[in-house]
Amino acid sequence: MLNDSDLLYMKRALRLAKKGRGRTAPNPMVGAVVVLQGKIVGEGYHHAAGKAHAEILALEAAGPLVKGATLYTTLEPCCHIKKRTPPCTEALIKSGVVRVVSAMKDPNPRVSGKGFKQLKDAGIQVEQGLLREAAEFLNEVFMKNMETGQPFVTLKAAMTLDGRIATASGESKWISGERARLEVDRLRAEADGVLVGIGTVLADDPMLRLRKTKGKNPIRVVLDPHLKIPLSSRLVETARETPTVILTTEAAAPLQGKALERKGVLVRKIALQGKEMPFKVILHDLAKQGITHLLVEGGGGVNGIALRSGCVDRVIFYISPRFLCGADAKGVVTGTALPSLALAPTLKNMTVRRMGNDIRIEGRLGK
Amino acid sequence: MLNDSDLLYMKRALRLAKKGRGRTAPNPMVGAVVVLQGKIVGEGYHHAAGKAHAEILALEAAGPLVKGATLYTTLEPCCHIKKRTPPCTEALIKSGVVRVVSAMKDPNPRVSGKGFKQLKDAGIQVEQGLLREAAEFLNEVFMKNMETGQPFVTLKAAMTLDGRIATASGESKWISGERARLEVDRLRAEADGVLVGIGTVLADDPMLRLRKTKGKNPIRVVLDPHLKIPLSSRLVETARETPTVILTTEAAAPLQGKALERKGVLVRKIALQGKEMPFKVILHDLAKQGITHLLVEGGGGVNGIALRSGCVDRVIFYISPRFLCGADAKGVVTGTALPSLALAPTLKNMTVRRMGNDIRIEGRLGK
Repeated sequence: MLNDSDLLYMKRALRLAKKGRGRTAPNPMVGAVVVLQGKIVGEGYHHAAGKAHAEILALEAAGPLVKGATLYTTLEPCCHIKKRTPPCTEALIKSGVVRVVSAMKDPNPRVSGKGFKQLKDAGIQVEQGLLREAAEFLNEVFMKNMETGQPFVTLKAAMTLDGRIATASGESKWISGERARLEVDRLRAEADGVLVGIGTVLADDPMLRLRKTKGKNPIRVVLDPHLKIPLSSRLVETARETPTVILTTEAAAPLQGKALERKGVLVRKIALQGKEMPFKVILHDLAKQGITHLLVEGGGGVNGIALRSGCVDRVIFYISPRFLCGADAKGVVTGTALPSLALAPTLKNMTVRRMGNDIRIEGRLGK
Repeated sequence: MLNDSDLLYMKRALRLAKKGRGRTAPNPMVGAVVVLQGKIVGEGYHHAAGKAHAEILALEAAGPLVKGATLYTTLEPCCHIKKRTPPCTEALIKSGVVRVVSAMKDPNPRVSGKGFKQLKDAGIQVEQGLLREAAEFLNEVFMKNMETGQPFVTLKAAMTLDGRIATASGESKWISGERARLEVDRLRAEADGVLVGIGTVLADDPMLRLRKTKGKNPIRVVLDPHLKIPLSSRLVETARETPTVILTTEAAAPLQGKALERKGVLVRKIALQGKEMPFKVILHDLAKQGITHLLVEGGGGVNGIALRSGCVDRVIFYISPRFLCGADAKGVVTGTALPSLALAPTLKNMTVRRMGNDIRIEGRLGK
């Protein structure tokens, strides 16, 4: 049976979990709270991949007060071995806690349900599903990784109100205002991969690194079917400092690939499906490079491939209320359109707000 | 000298003025309040074109209490003759009011400042400019008409988040939700002209009439350079019931023009400038047809001509948070784009809100 104080402690555990944001990948964010006789006696959260799990930190903090206590955790405690830390179920069973309340099952097939079972088998009372939606939303990246083997995909774009991201000649600096651009910096810090098309590289010669935010630069990925990227581009020039992956096709000249590799770029071939590089295959390849959260930053061609694949999870659009007034200006999503409105992917859980002079729209796509 | 109670009475006059919305064209909305010794003794507003002016109704309502009173009016009292009603300045001078407070000067060159002068010359104390911005905003249509000789132009569009108004095959029903479509009905009732391109007629065979709102149908205008509109289209078939204007060019076949005229359509020729029909010339022509407020309802080509001309005053976009995902889907604004971001017209006084599942963005363009 769950009661109102259970809810309060689980909210606390969720707040703790969030403290790990941006550092736990490929692990989820997890928070845990130990409660004895109506008092919090221990707390913990997963600080970063490779560090102790939330449950262990909370148990340690509680010390001897753990006997007879309830542990609240935002995720099913792990039970699998052959990883950097020992299973939490073992520690919980040894600890003397009598009840474990968990927000959600671990989507990792090596755990999923087995952690709960081990606890129950040891006589611990187990309850699950409290604030499940919030917990799943918090770990949407981890969920996607576990359920599909693909990175979570955020697509962001800055466009005019008539859906254009650059003039016909490629001028795009700056469509969005400073606040939006600062947020993009933060989005890059949260992701571990950032993807653009070769058109964007040729037009803007971008660095795709954090500008003002502290954190780790994401792996930079360019879709470049014919390896048109100049060896003198800033991405290639800095490939030894910041990992850079170029995804190309059989159509590219092998010598150009060798030249890029000598500069420190990782060049990967993707088999074409029809005229396009299949986005699902791209995602599986990037998962192999360790990318758990990919930020798609356009241009229109890449946005189109990504959106049509059905693999985009989150969309963030910054709309500058201006008009470029023509079809030759670059569209935010190009390629061959979906043939009917019924097929058009639709945002859910949308939020709309003003951000400086821009309008910010965020939502989720998917299932 | 103006004081706080002046402000209150002028706000009251503005509220009264708004009651005439949609029925006063080509006249402005005007409200008037007569105040004697801190009490409202008479009120009035201009109900409809051809009916009594606000000042006259307020004076009549005040009766003998007008002696020594102040009259508040949202617009400079008229002083010109040869129209359906006698000049208000005469009535005011005769009435015995000692003070007239007005929100704004009449932009009509036949009045502008002359009304105030007549009152002052007769010994009445005149003050102007109280809540001027609100008064000018209320009568933005009238202001545009008077200052430029052109209709006020509202451009509305319903599009996907990637800036598309229809699939490649022309499917556009319905991009926006029911609430947005109901509002478009109201916009048509407020306007006295509605403009679409021939592409929209061929794709949708629209009626461009009020569907659920009560009111007068606007004059329907089609830009059709080659007179491709079918004689069997619903617009042509109903041209005898609802005025319908087709703007065409020298390139059209004269016989087709004759056939349309026999169906009750007014066919007007506009001289091409380059490849396009110049929007300013179109507006001047529509002003001659009595249109004071034109609602531009697309498609992309007409939207482009209108926006690039710099003659659009108000924009209302309904964004459905979906993606058609391609460049062959119809863009919300097409034609040859502006060559630089600096030239892109930018919305001012923007409002953004959710409307059902859509996002509604409204703003003003111009000076």
